[in-house]
Amino acid sequence: MSAGLVTLDDIRAAAGRVRPYVRRTPILATAGGLTLKCENLQPGGAFKIRGACNMLAQLSPAARAAGVITYSSGNHGQAVALAAARLGARAVVVMPETAPQVKVDGVRRWGGDVIMAGTTLFHRQARAEQEAASRGLTMVPPFDHAWIVAGAGTLGLELLEDCAHLTTVYVPVGGGGLLSGVAAALKQMRPSVRVIGVEPDGAASMLASRAAGQPVTLAATASIADGLLAGRPGDLTFAHMRAYVDDLVTVPDADIEAAVRWVFAEARLVVEPSGAVSVAAARRDGAGKGALAILSGGNVDAAAFARYIV
Amino acid sequence: MSAGLVTLDDIRAAAGRVRPYVRRTPILATAGGLTLKCENLQPGGAFKIRGACNMLAQLSPAARAAGVITYSSGNHGQAVALAAARLGARAVVVMPETAPQVKVDGVRRWGGDVIMAGTTLFHRQARAEQEAASRGLTMVPPFDHAWIVAGAGTLGLELLEDCAHLTTVYVPVGGGGLLSGVAAALKQMRPSVRVIGVEPDGAASMLASRAAGQPVTLAATASIADGLLAGRPGDLTFAHMRAYVDDLVTVPDADIEAAVRWVFAEARLVVEPSGAVSVAAARRDGAGKGALAILSGGNVDAAAFARYIV
Repeated sequence: MSAGLVTLDDIRAAAGRVRPYVRRTPILATAGGLTLKCENLQPGGAFKIRGACNMLAQLSPAARAAGVITYSSGNHGQAVALAAARLGARAVVVMPETAPQVKVDGVRRWGGDVIMAGTTLFHRQARAEQEAASRGLTMVPPFDHAWIVAGAGTLGLELLEDCAHLTTVYVPVGGGGLLSGVAAALKQMRPSVRVIGVEPDGAASMLASRAAGQPVTLAATASIADGLLAGRPGDLTFAHMRAYVDDLVTVPDADIEAAVRWVFAEARLVVEPSGAVSVAAARRDGAGKGALAILSGGNVDAAAFARYIV
Repeated sequence: MSAGLVTLDDIRAAAGRVRPYVRRTPILATAGGLTLKCENLQPGGAFKIRGACNMLAQLSPAARAAGVITYSSGNHGQAVALAAARLGARAVVVMPETAPQVKVDGVRRWGGDVIMAGTTLFHRQARAEQEAASRGLTMVPPFDHAWIVAGAGTLGLELLEDCAHLTTVYVPVGGGGLLSGVAAALKQMRPSVRVIGVEPDGAASMLASRAAGQPVTLAATASIADGLLAGRPGDLTFAHMRAYVDDLVTVPDADIEAAVRWVFAEARLVVEPSGAVSVAAARRDGAGKGALAILSGGNVDAAAFARYIV
């Protein structure tokens, strides 16, 4: 049953591996008591660097020399490009034609080659697999891989080490990699902490999958949280959700936008909509002391951010 | 000559005193190497909490019970209101009629009483002194006081403890309290670090005073950096500048606005114009590894911030 779930040893090994490349991000208490874990302040602007570095660090020199490829709506692509630059590999990133410019620019900035392919996860995954096969590149999947999940889990270890009185942790959910890693770390070390996954109303594929008892694919997704539109959880992330997650909730776009605005005004931080769904859920719960929301990323176009905060 | 300059012992004592109330703010390296000290992430959104707490903590119980008063363009007023709330005192804050709404709201949020008085430092200082005398309130001046300077100096200690390879530190200058405290700490402990004060072109009173050999008052000030319009350095802060500061430079509003935008995009942080003059000067110098810019505050109206970043 638990075959394939990442262990604490996996996560601890990942923590040692990623330490040279990943920032121990600040944990800030707001005036109302809700605490924020600032993964928007990571190199590359999102938690994704954790998984990308954990995977690239384990590739053989030959595989690194041949190069890596991934498909991503943006933040994972940037992280793979950045991790590749740091670890001496070349990276190709297949992105949707609808990716925010700031995320496309981010990939190119770290020297990654961008290929645009359609608008759905299916399109970009198919294209990436085809390129990987024809060019001998190693695939770095965005979430459904034990090394990616263990990398994300290093964030959970930091919460345990840095927060003495944690009661509830709110985690944004796209494909479920962050939720899987964080829940695996927390529940195996301090099971009293409640772990809540948060999806946008318009892309609640983990919730739908839990109801169905297996991973299901949404017919359509729609949300301002452009990083959470995977539309289907992974098999591995679904298994972690079943094993370790206390609850799944959804939030409407209006609340996500209000959360972006609240983080701007209360914490003076830039968070993207996908990274603010956790805050939206926490605020709806009236969460105060002991509650923590993970700000999973901060890559947002200036014009969009300006609209959200005014 | 050095009579009245704050000592390392003063600053170390302040550090112990303010520890329960002040955050050890993050120090973040950007991709280009320039490092940011994030005082915009302080409670109250600015470094001012350091001086305010250092002063209020040294008042007698009777003085605290009677209450405190200050005059401020915004951030110091918020800090005094917040420090008073934490230390069990009442606070009155005299603010200019032109203060950004976000700063007025900030004072009221911590329970401070706001009095609006004119638009110049002269107007609000006069009104505050009159209220202090008639109501028996203790004055907490915004910068020209040894306890305020020593409080600001605690930031310098953190830089020394947290940054191994510091070559140059850029510090925003309004009345000069932050510059005085930081320079006093750095130059007495690691004199090889260059300390550069940065003023807006339209409010360069410290520069004018250095040229005159004594504190002078500007006939007029104009800048988007609303927190740096004091128009005259203090006698004490002028003395610290002469004793400890390597250089003073000025930056135009266009560069300040570009710096706010750059911090948004590169560091995913919200900094106000006054807090970004340091970044503007550092960028003009092409400052990379070893250079640090203090982001002194992050209290900015959403509509103004939206204009700056787009």
